Amino acid sequence: MSTNWGRNYRISIFGESHGKALGVNIDGIPAGTKLDLDFIKEEMQRRAPGKSEFSTPRMEKDEFEILSGYINELTTGTPLCMIVRNTDQRSKDYSELAQKMRPGHADYSGLMRYKGFNDIRGSGHFSGRITASIVFAGAIAKLILKEKGIHIGAHIKSIFDTEDRGFENKDRNPEVFESLRQEFLPFLNKEIRVPLENKIRAVKDEGDSVGGVVEISVIGMPAGVGDPFFNSVESELASMMYSIPAVKGLEFGAGFAIAGMLGSEANDEMYFDEDENIKTYTNNNGGIIGGITNGEPVNFKVAIKPPASISKKQKTVNIVTKENTVLEVTGRHDPVIVPRAVVVLECATAIVMLDCLLEAEKNKGL
Amino acid sequence: MSTNWGRNYRISIFGESHGKALGVNIDGIPAGTKLDLDFIKEEMQRRAPGKSEFSTPRMEKDEFEILSGYINELTTGTPLCMIVRNTDQRSKDYSELAQKMRPGHADYSGLMRYKGFNDIRGSGHFSGRITASIVFAGAIAKLILKEKGIHIGAHIKSIFDTEDRGFENKDRNPEVFESLRQEFLPFLNKEIRVPLENKIRAVKDEGDSVGGVVEISVIGMPAGVGDPFFNSVESELASMMYSIPAVKGLEFGAGFAIAGMLGSEANDEMYFDEDENIKTYTNNNGGIIGGITNGEPVNFKVAIKPPASISKKQKTVNIVTKENTVLEVTGRHDPVIVPRAVVVLECATAIVMLDCLLEAEKNKGL
Amino acid sequence: MSTNWGRNYRISIFGESHGKALGVNIDGIPAGTKLDLDFIKEEMQRRAPGKSEFSTPRMEKDEFEILSGYINELTTGTPLCMIVRNTDQRSKDYSELAQKMRPGHADYSGLMRYKGFNDIRGSGHFSGRITASIVFAGAIAKLILKEKGIHIGAHIKSIFDTEDRGFENKDRNPEVFESLRQEFLPFLNKEIRVPLENKIRAVKDEGDSVGGVVEISVIGMPAGVGDPFFNSVESELASMMYSIPAVKGLEFGAGFAIAGMLGSEANDEMYFDEDENIKTYTNNNGGIIGGITNGEPVNFKVAIKPPASISKKQKTVNIVTKENTVLEVTGRHDPVIVPRAVVVLECATAIVMLDCLLEAEKNKGL
Amino acid sequence: MSTNWGRNYRISIFGESHGKALGVNIDGIPAGTKLDLDFIKEEMQRRAPGKSEFSTPRMEKDEFEILSGYINELTTGTPLCMIVRNTDQRSKDYSELAQKMRPGHADYSGLMRYKGFNDIRGSGHFSGRITASIVFAGAIAKLILKEKGIHIGAHIKSIFDTEDRGFENKDRNPEVFESLRQEFLPFLNKEIRVPLENKIRAVKDEGDSVGGVVEISVIGMPAGVGDPFFNSVESELASMMYSIPAVKGLEFGAGFAIAGMLGSEANDEMYFDEDENIKTYTNNNGGIIGGITNGEPVNFKVAIKPPASISKKQKTVNIVTKENTVLEVTGRHDPVIVPRAVVVLECATAIVMLDCLLEAEKNKGL
Repeated sequence: MSTNWGRNYRISIFGESHGKALGVNIDGIPAGTKLDLDFIKEEMQRRAPGKSEFSTPRMEKDEFEILSGYINELTTGTPLCMIVRNTDQRSKDYSELAQKMRPGHADYSGLMRYKGFNDIRGSGHFSGRITASIVFAGAIAKLILKEKGIHIGAHIKSIFDTEDRGFENKDRNPEVFESLRQEFLPFLNKEIRVPLENKIRAVKDEGDSVGGVVEISVIGMPAGVGDPFFNSVESELASMMYSIPAVKGLEFGAGFAIAGMLGSEANDEMYFDEDENIKTYTNNNGGIIGGITNGEPVNFKVAIKPPASISKKQKTVNIVTKENTVLEVTGRHDPVIVPRAVVVLECATAIVMLDCLLEAEKNKGL
Repeated sequence: MSTNWGRNYRISIFGESHGKALGVNIDGIPAGTKLDLDFIKEEMQRRAPGKSEFSTPRMEKDEFEILSGYINELTTGTPLCMIVRNTDQRSKDYSELAQKMRPGHADYSGLMRYKGFNDIRGSGHFSGRITASIVFAGAIAKLILKEKGIHIGAHIKSIFDTEDRGFENKDRNPEVFESLRQEFLPFLNKEIRVPLENKIRAVKDEGDSVGGVVEISVIGMPAGVGDPFFNSVESELASMMYSIPAVKGLEFGAGFAIAGMLGSEANDEMYFDEDENIKTYTNNNGGIIGGITNGEPVNFKVAIKPPASISKKQKTVNIVTKENTVLEVTGRHDPVIVPRAVVVLECATAIVMLDCLLEAEKNKGL
Repeated sequence: MSTNWGRNYRISIFGESHGKALGVNIDGIPAGTKLDLDFIKEEMQRRAPGKSEFSTPRMEKDEFEILSGYINELTTGTPLCMIVRNTDQRSKDYSELAQKMRPGHADYSGLMRYKGFNDIRGSGHFSGRITASIVFAGAIAKLILKEKGIHIGAHIKSIFDTEDRGFENKDRNPEVFESLRQEFLPFLNKEIRVPLENKIRAVKDEGDSVGGVVEISVIGMPAGVGDPFFNSVESELASMMYSIPAVKGLEFGAGFAIAGMLGSEANDEMYFDEDENIKTYTNNNGGIIGGITNGEPVNFKVAIKPPASISKKQKTVNIVTKENTVLEVTGRHDPVIVPRAVVVLECATAIVMLDCLLEAEKNKGL
Repeated sequence: MSTNWGRNYRISIFGESHGKALGVNIDGIPAGTKLDLDFIKEEMQRRAPGKSEFSTPRMEKDEFEILSGYINELTTGTPLCMIVRNTDQRSKDYSELAQKMRPGHADYSGLMRYKGFNDIRGSGHFSGRITASIVFAGAIAKLILKEKGIHIGAHIKSIFDTEDRGFENKDRNPEVFESLRQEFLPFLNKEIRVPLENKIRAVKDEGDSVGGVVEISVIGMPAGVGDPFFNSVESELASMMYSIPAVKGLEFGAGFAIAGMLGSEANDEMYFDEDENIKTYTNNNGGIIGGITNGEPVNFKVAIKPPASISKKQKTVNIVTKENTVLEVTGRHDPVIVPRAVVVLECATAIVMLDCLLEAEKNKGL
């Protein structure tokens, strides 16, 4: 079962890269929500291919159609289904790829899972293209959260060996988030962009690819949202983040670095600020303690592996002939997927935050 | 909702540190499963306090009682409920802690979540003691997995600034796993133990604490288990791992390091071994691609923060007087929780693996 | 949350009567299932309007389009989404109905639920038209069940005051089921049809409507499927049946009549037949005891209320003017919905039976 | 999976008739709820055996112990687990019953489900005794609902061939409900009690048993609770009601009788009362239309089969010798279970209503 996520803001996704369409059925949008379609289109465009020299030239416009749950520019409260038709899926010959498993791709694991019946054209249901559904559902969640004063921002913390500085408190405001959102390569330290572009170009010319880390921050979340144990905010976010293809690491607050700290360093000491709000001096816990928000920014980092599609020769198996072989995948590939992943991670975060907030409404009791 | 986990092997936990009892109701144990109670007791003892100079001297024997679902040394297939009575919960005076929030603990977030009604004695439901239920359910899962040739091993990858080497293929066998299981400080490189113990002793003497990283490996998982997107094996494991108190990071395979690799390095090239099994030369994906197992060991690392309970003075807030204040928590504390966490993480892993395997049975269709 | 049903064969529905489209996303179809599209179309046509003088003349062809999860005439195992475009939704003026609540309809309860934002054209998401999604998903389930020797049959047990005889064992075979399936008014006693048609014509001429009871039988279900308590086969069927608009009663086996029996009559005595199969002399329990199938036919009856849309004058409220008023709904209406409901109930049953069978696969353990 | 029910007020049950204990883990009780333990004990006593000449003389006191989630007479908001020790489970010799399947009992279906490993002593997990957990959880739900002005009442609509009159509006108030609650045989028409008792005595003397119908009414539910389709209030109630052993029929409002009405009779016409509340003249829909409450009393009837345990000789099978045989179960049995079922059905109703109300809180959005 790969299809449904959420307790309160529930999504059900479908689609393949080269099938007729992909989409999502969303349950739990409050009735009477005004949808800013321009904002949603912008978010969809941030993920769409063809935006840069570093993304595949496939010219999908990713135009979505809302089939239900929406009338007079307002949501009805009943399920809202959105589809995106695939228009540029010129499928090449897949006979070689049906036999030779591409390293780093889900070709072999998918074959075992689906007994060879899954659609392999353009990676089928395993394609990153399916995340368009997450972006759509998350863009709506973002709009709802914004009304509550909750904002999600993200920047690229690193690509390959180039490091951006981390989010500081001064960066955590809607203006900076919006300014980062306008960039294809959103860095806090702007100076690293040009040298990095040159580096990526070189990697691309060698038919290779690079990964990176994205840092995400959510501001405005009230304290007291989430649960200990199985529905901790961390569990919910992790369940969603690890649903996104290519994610291989996730850490909250100080993350792995906290394992090297003393308790006296790691503990976030507390104080009342001038407005009698409870704050912490540090945020090593990433805004979540005991699975529950404490009112500090929810902060986490996600590691994304390099795109598995490279044009370099690679050793692999031919599952039909049962022989070891070599594969050379032709065509143009994204040398880096991190920039397009940023909006996916942001929107995925919005889905989770909205779901947790709705749960908290329920937890208040009657 | 903090209580239930699982689609197929389902657990429902309860309890507080100083309440009458803690326990777990387990649904989905196959009927007729023989329970090796000695093994389960051993696992419970690995987590129990009082085993070392570095764990709290609270002398809980953690003796469990099975209330249902078990007769003639076999499971019935109906819900199996287990409880552990709390016997050594000499509650001290909690009047100060009801006002002063302990930094790093869930005191404040829990207060906001439960409106001040939650049990704060010994951290109540937020206590690591509640993980005894996970150990119990996971020990049963381990027994079932073992019958299918699936084994789970773990070692401490680091504590504070002391690093163990990582798992290598030679380490991934039931014998090494069993030998690690016998140790309170399970390292692959045995030479680091004594100097580390001295270091922890020093930290303890200063009233401080340290965290660490645990590396877990699952061998014997067949390929084809799991799903893309929302029920990826990574999502399921992450949802469970981030349910465990003090976990702040999780990475699969190469994890965050994969973000610094080239695609040609990160992709796990494939080959047929002499027995016609499909293998990969590397395992940067940690045995999971596209959310689905590929037959390689499932490998991941978990970062655990230092115990929040330290005796050093800390700045915090008094929520009654609304003043900034200083807290000094007396009493003896675990200077490190990582060793006791190892069995919790292993057992949590077993629960997830069993759940995913049962799901795969269903996915085979009728 | 009105959208998702199922643990193993999971459906997520959407759509409104006069929106762009309705449809369903199905998760859990085994990979490699061959779909007999002609059969599915036939089932869709059985539900479609315009088939008889007694059903609305709206000329929807209910042509479905499969968007995903299906390639080369086989399912892929990944989510299969189907949509039906609404083509004949000539929306009349809804300004009166926005104010005057139609008795028997969900106008008022829906208004309260969705704060007035739900689509009211043609009853919107409350329309019986949405059951086309259930028919589609159920038709696929029927095909899968048929391969396992499991067949679902139904007849109209009563309409208004006309009673058909009940299913007898001689009727419970694929041939009779198929022959009933071919009829718009499927009765076991064929002689009641013509007089009943005259009666319905008279009701229709008076601008009124009639309800009825449908009896459903499932043969071929193995013993041992289902669970005691919360996932009893009865609970699962009931949850689904009461999801279908206009259903107001459901009884298994002897149903309400069993409340008037002695235990010695109600208990289904058992015997070995000549083939050493365990059988019961009677089937007052409807093939389910303790929530679990016993190998006898699963038999139940469903009460369907008369269509709420009638052209007679009715007393109601005007929610805008806050006045008591009278409503007269013009246009042509179905005088009876029972015949079109038969296929919906059959298909709904198929969904549940498949879900329970998949659960039983899992319950077998590893 | 037989164990868990609920989206918001979630229960997880366990236990066998002759095991160590039965109980329930409850998740979702609002923090700070005051529990009236005397009321809960009363409800438990209403279900307990030994209260009348018509219930088994097993002298279980059904004393419950709360293990968690409760301190200082208030709920903590974290899981509340309750157990009842079995004290009077003098298990007789079950060797005959292990071979001879009791007609009407889940012996055979349970054997097939659990492969013969389930506990058969006193019917094990299939025992009606397990409903004590439902009563406990439902008694708490009743207390919470009462605070919101929501009350649940029930009376016995029929036993065998003796009929009580149905609920009328004058009966639907907390006082009548409370007065019915005090009676072992709660009838609206008090005159039928004595003749019925004589009839039951006669049935008992013949070693036989009788069933009946219970009518339940919920007053005070606001309009707008529930959802169309898969989480209709009817679906939720039905899922729960059919979880209770011996339930074979369920109808809402006019129920099966509505199938014989004209639309003009069945439709509940509407009006504003003097306080500008929207009301209906009739309540054939049982307070639920389109799956959603309309503010009228939620009204439904439940058919309960005669206790399967009778002392008359019955034909059955011996599954070991594979022979047809005759079974005569000795010992004293309940000739009627309906009176003890009343409180179970009331409490089950309370669980569902609370769950739906909490869902409605969430549906309101942020």
